[in-house]
Amino acid sequence: MQIDQNKIDGYNGQALRKHERALAYLQGEIPHAEEVLRLLGEFQVAIPSWALGTGGTRFGRFPAGGEPRNLEEKIEDIGLLHRLNRASGAISLHIPWDIPEDPAHIRALAAAHGIRFDAMNSNTFQDQPGQEHSYKFGSLQHVNRDVRKQAIEHNIEVIRQGVALGSESLTVWLSDGSCFPGQLSFRKAFENTLEGLSEIYAELPDHWKMFVEYKAFEPNFYSTTVGDWGQSYLFASKLGKKAYTLVDLGHHLPNANIEQIVSLLLMEGKLGGFHFNDSKYGDDDLTVGSIKPYQLFLIFCELVDGMNARNMKHATDLGWMIDASHNVKDPLEDLLQSVEAILIAYAQALLVDRAALTAAQERNDVVAAQEILQQAYRTDVRPLVAEARLRAGGALSPLGVYRGEKVRSGLISRRGVSTIATGL
Amino acid sequence: MQIDQNKIDGYNGQALRKHERALAYLQGEIPHAEEVLRLLGEFQVAIPSWALGTGGTRFGRFPAGGEPRNLEEKIEDIGLLHRLNRASGAISLHIPWDIPEDPAHIRALAAAHGIRFDAMNSNTFQDQPGQEHSYKFGSLQHVNRDVRKQAIEHNIEVIRQGVALGSESLTVWLSDGSCFPGQLSFRKAFENTLEGLSEIYAELPDHWKMFVEYKAFEPNFYSTTVGDWGQSYLFASKLGKKAYTLVDLGHHLPNANIEQIVSLLLMEGKLGGFHFNDSKYGDDDLTVGSIKPYQLFLIFCELVDGMNARNMKHATDLGWMIDASHNVKDPLEDLLQSVEAILIAYAQALLVDRAALTAAQERNDVVAAQEILQQAYRTDVRPLVAEARLRAGGALSPLGVYRGEKVRSGLISRRGVSTIATGL
Amino acid sequence: MQIDQNKIDGYNGQALRKHERALAYLQGEIPHAEEVLRLLGEFQVAIPSWALGTGGTRFGRFPAGGEPRNLEEKIEDIGLLHRLNRASGAISLHIPWDIPEDPAHIRALAAAHGIRFDAMNSNTFQDQPGQEHSYKFGSLQHVNRDVRKQAIEHNIEVIRQGVALGSESLTVWLSDGSCFPGQLSFRKAFENTLEGLSEIYAELPDHWKMFVEYKAFEPNFYSTTVGDWGQSYLFASKLGKKAYTLVDLGHHLPNANIEQIVSLLLMEGKLGGFHFNDSKYGDDDLTVGSIKPYQLFLIFCELVDGMNARNMKHATDLGWMIDASHNVKDPLEDLLQSVEAILIAYAQALLVDRAALTAAQERNDVVAAQEILQQAYRTDVRPLVAEARLRAGGALSPLGVYRGEKVRSGLISRRGVSTIATGL
Amino acid sequence: MQIDQNKIDGYNGQALRKHERALAYLQGEIPHAEEVLRLLGEFQVAIPSWALGTGGTRFGRFPAGGEPRNLEEKIEDIGLLHRLNRASGAISLHIPWDIPEDPAHIRALAAAHGIRFDAMNSNTFQDQPGQEHSYKFGSLQHVNRDVRKQAIEHNIEVIRQGVALGSESLTVWLSDGSCFPGQLSFRKAFENTLEGLSEIYAELPDHWKMFVEYKAFEPNFYSTTVGDWGQSYLFASKLGKKAYTLVDLGHHLPNANIEQIVSLLLMEGKLGGFHFNDSKYGDDDLTVGSIKPYQLFLIFCELVDGMNARNMKHATDLGWMIDASHNVKDPLEDLLQSVEAILIAYAQALLVDRAALTAAQERNDVVAAQEILQQAYRTDVRPLVAEARLRAGGALSPLGVYRGEKVRSGLISRRGVSTIATGL
Repeated sequence: MQIDQNKIDGYNGQALRKHERALAYLQGEIPHAEEVLRLLGEFQVAIPSWALGTGGTRFGRFPAGGEPRNLEEKIEDIGLLHRLNRASGAISLHIPWDIPEDPAHIRALAAAHGIRFDAMNSNTFQDQPGQEHSYKFGSLQHVNRDVRKQAIEHNIEVIRQGVALGSESLTVWLSDGSCFPGQLSFRKAFENTLEGLSEIYAELPDHWKMFVEYKAFEPNFYSTTVGDWGQSYLFASKLGKKAYTLVDLGHHLPNANIEQIVSLLLMEGKLGGFHFNDSKYGDDDLTVGSIKPYQLFLIFCELVDGMNARNMKHATDLGWMIDASHNVKDPLEDLLQSVEAILIAYAQALLVDRAALTAAQERNDVVAAQEILQQAYRTDVRPLVAEARLRAGGALSPLGVYRGEKVRSGLISRRGVSTIATGL
Repeated sequence: MQIDQNKIDGYNGQALRKHERALAYLQGEIPHAEEVLRLLGEFQVAIPSWALGTGGTRFGRFPAGGEPRNLEEKIEDIGLLHRLNRASGAISLHIPWDIPEDPAHIRALAAAHGIRFDAMNSNTFQDQPGQEHSYKFGSLQHVNRDVRKQAIEHNIEVIRQGVALGSESLTVWLSDGSCFPGQLSFRKAFENTLEGLSEIYAELPDHWKMFVEYKAFEPNFYSTTVGDWGQSYLFASKLGKKAYTLVDLGHHLPNANIEQIVSLLLMEGKLGGFHFNDSKYGDDDLTVGSIKPYQLFLIFCELVDGMNARNMKHATDLGWMIDASHNVKDPLEDLLQSVEAILIAYAQALLVDRAALTAAQERNDVVAAQEILQQAYRTDVRPLVAEARLRAGGALSPLGVYRGEKVRSGLISRRGVSTIATGL
Repeated sequence: MQIDQNKIDGYNGQALRKHERALAYLQGEIPHAEEVLRLLGEFQVAIPSWALGTGGTRFGRFPAGGEPRNLEEKIEDIGLLHRLNRASGAISLHIPWDIPEDPAHIRALAAAHGIRFDAMNSNTFQDQPGQEHSYKFGSLQHVNRDVRKQAIEHNIEVIRQGVALGSESLTVWLSDGSCFPGQLSFRKAFENTLEGLSEIYAELPDHWKMFVEYKAFEPNFYSTTVGDWGQSYLFASKLGKKAYTLVDLGHHLPNANIEQIVSLLLMEGKLGGFHFNDSKYGDDDLTVGSIKPYQLFLIFCELVDGMNARNMKHATDLGWMIDASHNVKDPLEDLLQSVEAILIAYAQALLVDRAALTAAQERNDVVAAQEILQQAYRTDVRPLVAEARLRAGGALSPLGVYRGEKVRSGLISRRGVSTIATGL
Repeated sequence: MQIDQNKIDGYNGQALRKHERALAYLQGEIPHAEEVLRLLGEFQVAIPSWALGTGGTRFGRFPAGGEPRNLEEKIEDIGLLHRLNRASGAISLHIPWDIPEDPAHIRALAAAHGIRFDAMNSNTFQDQPGQEHSYKFGSLQHVNRDVRKQAIEHNIEVIRQGVALGSESLTVWLSDGSCFPGQLSFRKAFENTLEGLSEIYAELPDHWKMFVEYKAFEPNFYSTTVGDWGQSYLFASKLGKKAYTLVDLGHHLPNANIEQIVSLLLMEGKLGGFHFNDSKYGDDDLTVGSIKPYQLFLIFCELVDGMNARNMKHATDLGWMIDASHNVKDPLEDLLQSVEAILIAYAQALLVDRAALTAAQERNDVVAAQEILQQAYRTDVRPLVAEARLRAGGALSPLGVYRGEKVRSGLISRRGVSTIATGL
C-alpha cells in the first residue's frame, strides 16, 4: 500500500499557511536555521523489521490487524513511512525472522522505496524449530562448545546474508547471563563469549562494523554477560577496531546517566550506534521521547558535540536505529511518533549555542550553562523538522496523512485482521 | 506419578544419623525448639497451578518436558511435592487455565492428595479465544462498560467455580494501567475499577475473602491502576471488611521496604495474603530466597510479630502462596527450593527473642537489636525444618528424594517431552 | 537591596520588541491565550527561607557570599525575587532557623514587599543547643514520651508563631525512621507518631491546614515512619479534614509515577501542597525542571485537571512551595530558574486540549492522546510567562536584570563574603 | 584505654564451654575446618580513621561522646578493637583529617598496637581553611589548571606522608562531577582528571598501588567523573600497572550486580581493594552485612574464587577496608559488628564446595548450583570465626567484652562527652 505524492502534496497544501507562519517566526529567531534544515534533511533512522507488528509482553499480545506477513510487506510498510517522513530510509533486519529468500529481489524492492539495509541482527536468544542445540543456558557464553559453535555459525550466516543485501554492520545482542547466583562462572562466561565474538569478528568484511550491545537485565534476571557499557567496551576493545558498543536507551539500571556514557564512548572511538526507545522502568520499549524527552535531548547534545569533535558525519558515521515494541498503538503510527521525537531532539541539540556553552563551562557559570541548554530545548523546533521533511518531498504531518488516508484500514483489508508479524 | 512412603522412609533412614546429630545440637541451643517444630508442622504454602510448567519471558520459553497436561496432572504434581515436604498442601487455581470440568472429581482427587483449594485467580490480562471484548486497554478500568461487565462476570464465574471446589478466597490481579502519559484518566480508571470490584465483592460468599493485588509495573509500563499498597489499601477500605491487600514480593519499586508495608497492613487489619518469590530488578519471579534471603526473614519477623499482636493463627489466617515462574529450572525442584526457603525464614523469625528485642528498642539500643535479629538469622535452622517434615511423614531431603527417584525422567516418559502446561 | 521599577522598565524596554514578536506569534496560535495569562498572573510560589543560602551535602558546603544574615534579609531577598518575577510573593519559614523576635515588624516588612506567609515548618530532625531531649532516635515516633512531648510542644509553638505572622498552615516533615532492621517497631512508631500528630492537630486554628510530608529515605536509611503517600494518607485520614498530604518531588523511590499519586490524592481530597524541586537519584534538591521537565508538566496536567474537577482555585487552594538546596549556583538565580520552570510547566498544562484528550481517552486512541499532550508540551510558552510577568510589573527576563544589576556583588559588599544563612 | 588480656581471657573462660560445643559440632560437619580457621586467622580489615566518630548526614549529627580527639586516640581506639577481634590490625588515614605531626612517633604507637598503615586517603572534596583554591567545581576535573595543580600537589603530599608511615597505597576518591546538565564537558572533565591522575601516579613509589574509586552519585547529583567501574577501569588502564579500581559497596546504581563487577575486575587484574559497608538506597554507609548479607557472601565467593584463580594471597593482595559512617550506633560497636559480618561472609565463601559448583555449572544444573551456595551460606559459621579469634588471643565475643567493660563510658570520662572526631 502506498500513498501518492499528489495526496501528500494535497495535505501539505492545506497546512502550508500555518506552517509558513511558524517557520517564518522561527527563522527570525535562529540565524543558522538553514544549516539546521540541511542536517535534518540528511538524517535517516533505521526501522527494525520487528517493530512493524504489535509488540507483546510475557502476559499477552493484542494485535490490531494488517501486520506484514513477510519481508516484502515489511519493506512496503517502511517505504510508506519513509514516503511520509523522508527520514526512515533504512531497515534493520533480524535473522531468522526475516530471511530473504531472494536477496537480489529484496534489494531491488528496498531500493525502489529508497531504503537501504542497516545493521543485521542475529538471534541466539530463542530456539528455532529444528535447531540442534538449545540456547536455554546461553549461546556464546555456553559451557558446551557445540552450542557456542552453533551460535557462532548463525552469526556468520547473518553476515553472509547482510553482505548479499548490502548491509555493512552486524548487531550482536546476547541475552546470555544467568537467573540465579552460582548458575555460571562470570569469568568463564566472559571468556567463552569473547572467544565466540572473536570468531565472528574474523568473518566480518573489512568495511563492516560489529556492534556489541549491552543490557542490564531481562530475560536473565540475575546477571547478564554483556551487562553494561564497561563490559561491552571490554569486549569491543579486545576484538579490534571494527568492534563498537551499541547503546539501547532501555538497557540500563535505574537513573543511569546515559548521556555521559555516550560521551565517553565517543571520546574513546567506540560508540557504534543507537537503539532508540523510551522507558520508565526497564526495557519498556516505549515510543521514543514519550517518557523522558529531556534526557533524549541531552543525549543528542553529546552526540552532536562528540561527533563534531571527531569530524564525524552525523548522518552516517553512527548507526541510528529505533528499537521499540508497541503494545497498545498502531505500530506504524508509533514509528512515526518515534522518528519525529528523534528529529526534534536532534534539532534542539543543533540549536545549542556551543561557543556560549563552552564559555559558561570555562567560568563555572552553572546557571548560564543551564539557560543555554534550556533555551534550545524550550524552543519549538517542530516547524524546522516539518520544513526539512517538506523540502525532501515528505508530509508536513506524516501522522495526519496516515490517518487521513486510513492506512491501517487499508492494510487490514489487504492482509487480514489476524496476521501476525514475526518478532517478539 | 507418586513416591511410596517406603521409599521416602528409606531415604530418611540413610540420612537420619547426620540429621539427629544436627537436631540434637540445635535443641541444646533453642529452649523453645518444640514450639517452633509445632508451628513449622502446621504451616502450609499454596502452590499456584501455573508454576508447574516452565515459565517464560517475552523473549522465549525453554520447556524441559513432562509438564502437566491438565488439571488432574497438576494436582498430581502438587501431591508429589506435598508428599515430600508435607508443607505444600494447597493449590491456587487460575481461571481459565484450570477450569475444572467436574469439580466433585477434582475435589476428591485433591483430597486424596491431602490438598485443599486456596485462593482462586481470575484472568483479565489476556484475551481468550472467542472472547467478545478485548482487554488490550484494561478490564475493570476500561472506558467501555461492556468490557468492564465482561471482566466482572468472569470474576463472578471464578467465585462460582471456587465455591464448587471449596476455595474461600479470590485473588484479583489486574494488569490494568497505561503505557503512555495521557492514555487514560487516573481518576476514571480508579473509579471504574472500584465500581467493578464492588460488583464482584457483592457476589462474594460471606466467609470468603477478596485479595486486591498491587503491582508497580509490567505489563503496563507507564502507570498501573492498582500500583502500590496505598492504592490497594484504598480499594480494600472502600470495598469492605472482606477485602484485603495481597503482597507479591516482586511487585514493588526498587528498594521498597516491604517488611514495613507488611507491618502496617497487618496493623490496619488489611493484609490478606502473600505471593512469595524473589527478584533483583522487577517481577523477576525467581525462586523464593534466592536473591534476598535476609529481606525474606525480616518480612517473616513482621508477619510473626504482627499476627501474634492480633492473635491470628499463623497457619491459616493469611493466604500463603508462591508465585514464581521458572525459566531455567525443573519447576518442581524449584518449588521444593521455594518452600524450603519460606520455612527457613519462618523458623528463623520464630527464633527471634521478641522480649529482648522489644527491650532493646525501648532503650534505643540499635546494636543490640541488630544482634538479636542476626542471632536468629545466622542460626542454621535447617535441622528444625527437616525434623518438622520428618514428623509429618515427609522426606528429610525432599530434593534428594526427588532426584534419587528420577521424577522428572518419569514424568517425561509418561507425559512426553513437548508438553506445555497452561500458564505464562 | 532592591531594584528600582525604573531599572526593570529599562531592561524591559530593550527586550520588548523581540518579546512582542514572540507573543504575537503565540497569541495567533492559542485562542485562549488571555485566560492562560490571567491564570499565570495569579500564580504565586512560596520561597522557603532556607533556600536563600548555599545548600550543602554531608561532604561539604561552598558558600558564595552575601547570604542573608537574619530573617529581615531573607525577606529582603524574596522581595527582590518577587519584584523581578511577581510570582514569588510568599515565604515559608522554618523554626527555629527563622524565629521572628518581633512578629508585627516582620509582618509589616513582608507586607511592604508584597509577601505573605505560607506554611510554617517545624524542625524535629536536628538538636538545637540547650534542647533537653535529643531527636537522635526520632521525635514523634520516639519510645520516650518526654521526647515526643518536646516535639509536640515545638510544633504547637510553631503554630503559635505562624498565627502571629498570618500563616495558615503547618508542614510537618519528620525525619523519623530507622537505620537498621530491628531498631524500632514499625507499629509502635506509627502509633506514637499518630498520637503526636493528633495532639498537634488539636491545636490547629480552624482555618489552618496541616501538611503531613512523606519521604522514602534520608536521613534514615532503613525505614521512614512517614515513608510514602500511603502512609501519609493514613495519617491524614485518621487526623481529620484539616490534615493533608504534602508531596515533595524528591521524596520517592526510583521511577515512582508521581503524577498518578497527585491525581489520586486530589481525588480523595487529601492533597495539600507541593514541594517543588528536581532530582536524578534521591532528594537531590536540584533546580525545578532541570532534570525531568516532562514529568513536571505531567504533574501539572494532573493538578490542573484535578483542581478543575473539584472547582478548586489554582492559585490558592493548594500550597505551592519550592524546596531546593543549591550547592553550585547563586541561590537567588537558582530560585528564579525554579519559579520560571514551574510557570512554564503550568502554562503548558493550561494549553492541553482537555476535551480532545478526554475524547481520545474514551476511544482508547493512545497515539492521539500522546499527540495532544506533546502539542502542549512542545509549544514554546515562554512568551506567555514573560507577558504575565510584564503585565504584573515584573521583568521580562528576571535573571537578565539580576545579572545586569550585579545583585550578588551588591549583596556581598553589604553582607560580607563569609555570611552563612541558617539552613542545611 | 585498653583492655587487659586477663580480662579478655576471663570473658572467654565463661563462654568457652558453649563455644566448644558449637565448634565441635561444626568441625564434625566441615572436613577442611582447620584450613578455614587458618585463613580466617590471617585476615585483617583496615579501619578508616574517620569511622571512629559518629557519622552525620546533611540533616544533622548526634555524637554520643568519647570520640577520639586526635590521631593518637584514633590509633588507641583501633588498638582496642584489634585487641578484641584480632582482625582489625590496620588503619586507613585520611589527610588532612589525620595529619601525623611526628610520623615516627605515630608509627611506633601503631606498631605497639599491632597496627599497620593501610591505604592513605586524600581529600579534594572539601575546602580546608586557608586553602587557596576552592573545590566547589571539582578538583582534578576542574577547568582551571591552578585548582587541578593544587589537588595534584595535595595527593603527592599524601603519598609523602604515607611513605613516612609505611603505607603502600593511595586511595583517590574524587567527588568531581556536576549537579546540572551542561555544567561541564564530560570529555574535558575526563581528560583533565586523567592528566591529574597521571601526574600523581608518576610520584607513586614503585611498590605502591593507586586505587581509583568510583561512585555513582553524591555529592554531585547529575554526573560523577569517576562514576562507575567502567570509568574507573578506563582510568586505571591508561595509568598503568600500579593503578587499580577500588569498589565501595555503596557506590552503585540500584540493583547493580556488584559480584559480577568484582569478578571481571579480578579477571582483568584491575581490582585493587574494597570499601565495605551496606546500604538500601545509596551510599548509606550502614554496618557491613546489616541489609544484604547474601550479596556480601556472593561477593566473597567471587573474591575467593578470583583470587585463587590468580594465586593471590587472600589476606594481603587486595586492600580490605571498611568505609562506614555510624549515625545511631556507638562507632566502635558498629565496627565490631562490621568486622564480624565480613569474617562470617568470608568463612561462608570458604565453605563453598568449588569442585561441586564447577561441576554443576558444567552441566547447567542451576538447582544444584544454588543448593551448593546455600549450603555454605546457611551454615552457622560463627563458631569458626570465634575460634580463629580465640586462637589469635582475641575475645570469643568482642562486643560482649566491650560492653562488659563499659568501654564507651570510660572513653567519655577520659575524653569528654562533647568531643568530635574529624570526619564527615
